[in-house]
Amino acid sequence: MAGIWDLLNFMAQINLSTKGFNDVIDITKKVEEVVGESKIDDGVAIVFVVGSTAAITAIEYEPGLVKDIKEALEKIAPMNNNYHHEEAWHDGNGYAHIRATLMKPSLSVPIEKGKLCLGTWQQIVLIDFDNKPREREIIVKIISS
Amino acid sequence: MAGIWDLLNFMAQINLSTKGFNDVIDITKKVEEVVGESKIDDGVAIVFVVGSTAAITAIEYEPGLVKDIKEALEKIAPMNNNYHHEEAWHDGNGYAHIRATLMKPSLSVPIEKGKLCLGTWQQIVLIDFDNKPREREIIVKIISS
Amino acid sequence: MAGIWDLLNFMAQINLSTKGFNDVIDITKKVEEVVGESKIDDGVAIVFVVGSTAAITAIEYEPGLVKDIKEALEKIAPMNNNYHHEEAWHDGNGYAHIRATLMKPSLSVPIEKGKLCLGTWQQIVLIDFDNKPREREIIVKIISS
Repeated sequence: MAGIWDLLNFMAQINLSTKGFNDVIDITKKVEEVVGESKIDDGVAIVFVVGSTAAITAIEYEPGLVKDIKEALEKIAPMNNNYHHEEAWHDGNGYAHIRATLMKPSLSVPIEKGKLCLGTWQQIVLIDFDNKPREREIIVKIISS
Repeated sequence: MAGIWDLLNFMAQINLSTKGFNDVIDITKKVEEVVGESKIDDGVAIVFVVGSTAAITAIEYEPGLVKDIKEALEKIAPMNNNYHHEEAWHDGNGYAHIRATLMKPSLSVPIEKGKLCLGTWQQIVLIDFDNKPREREIIVKIISS
Repeated sequence: MAGIWDLLNFMAQINLSTKGFNDVIDITKKVEEVVGESKIDDGVAIVFVVGSTAAITAIEYEPGLVKDIKEALEKIAPMNNNYHHEEAWHDGNGYAHIRATLMKPSLSVPIEKGKLCLGTWQQIVLIDFDNKPREREIIVKIISS
């Protein structure tokens, strides 16, 4: 039965250094590499960032939109607001938690014929909201459909 | 082993014409049809829109809320703001990218006894934010749990 | 073949009483219990709330951030705005629908070695936006990867 389980079961971890401060990092190639290694042709990739001050989403990864998303999030949860979270940790990253909770840590992307079903201008990104550089751990689970 | 793989593996594509401009389209019946065709009784449907100016979410699909979600998004990322994205493409849809990145392209819905586990007033919708009519491709993957 | 299907197929329902009014409830332990019962060591937990006025997300569950997320959502979709939804139902919860549609009803969390891959300060929460106490039904599907 080993053969079946090998085909069904694939996980990889992507480790990344970020600059924090809403750093937007294109991880599409790294996720594609995991899909390739998995040898799973049809299924779904679930991409999940561990931690409560970062999110995974999709964007057309170009410098203008990277600025635009930072500005949009600055309106939604400004970096310099007074957050109640400050009372717990005094670490100045309340905004980062709120952004992460609104945007959520996971994204699911279908796989067909061994490729992620992304549009040409649709990339998978990590956004690290924290107010310092971080080492981030992203889990990629490949589920055979 | 073919029987097992047939049961585990099901994918369908939904093709839709939209009016763009934050068009909210109820796709619940189309997703239900895919679930029916899959003959998978227990699992999850992963609904994913290809492209970086649209999103999949759930809503009580009634005309008032369709207006309300458009007005809420207009506050979050106004259509007529100046976006840096304009410098790359000059196509006036920066707002659409920002809304899509905030709302994300995928939604996962459990399936039990051959039915999507939705509430009575909970529908699956595509929102097409782009500033023109579009032909959209939605991928539905059914994963047997 | 029963053995295979038992391993692949696991679902549980979590039933919860909420206070409504943006009640944020930590459901991590309940989801962990489902993972334990499933005896699935590697896979993904898909957590989904039935209904169109609640969402599932992740947060560092501490009292300050619970206040902060409520305040952030009050800016995005104020409770006392005039919503078009009012014309359909006259039940005063237009804000709740808009918040739920923006935040979405599902979250996917990888499982490794029988444990959810959450950070130490990363909890799974239900947020019930409705303007009254509710009995909520959360579906947890465990998919073996």
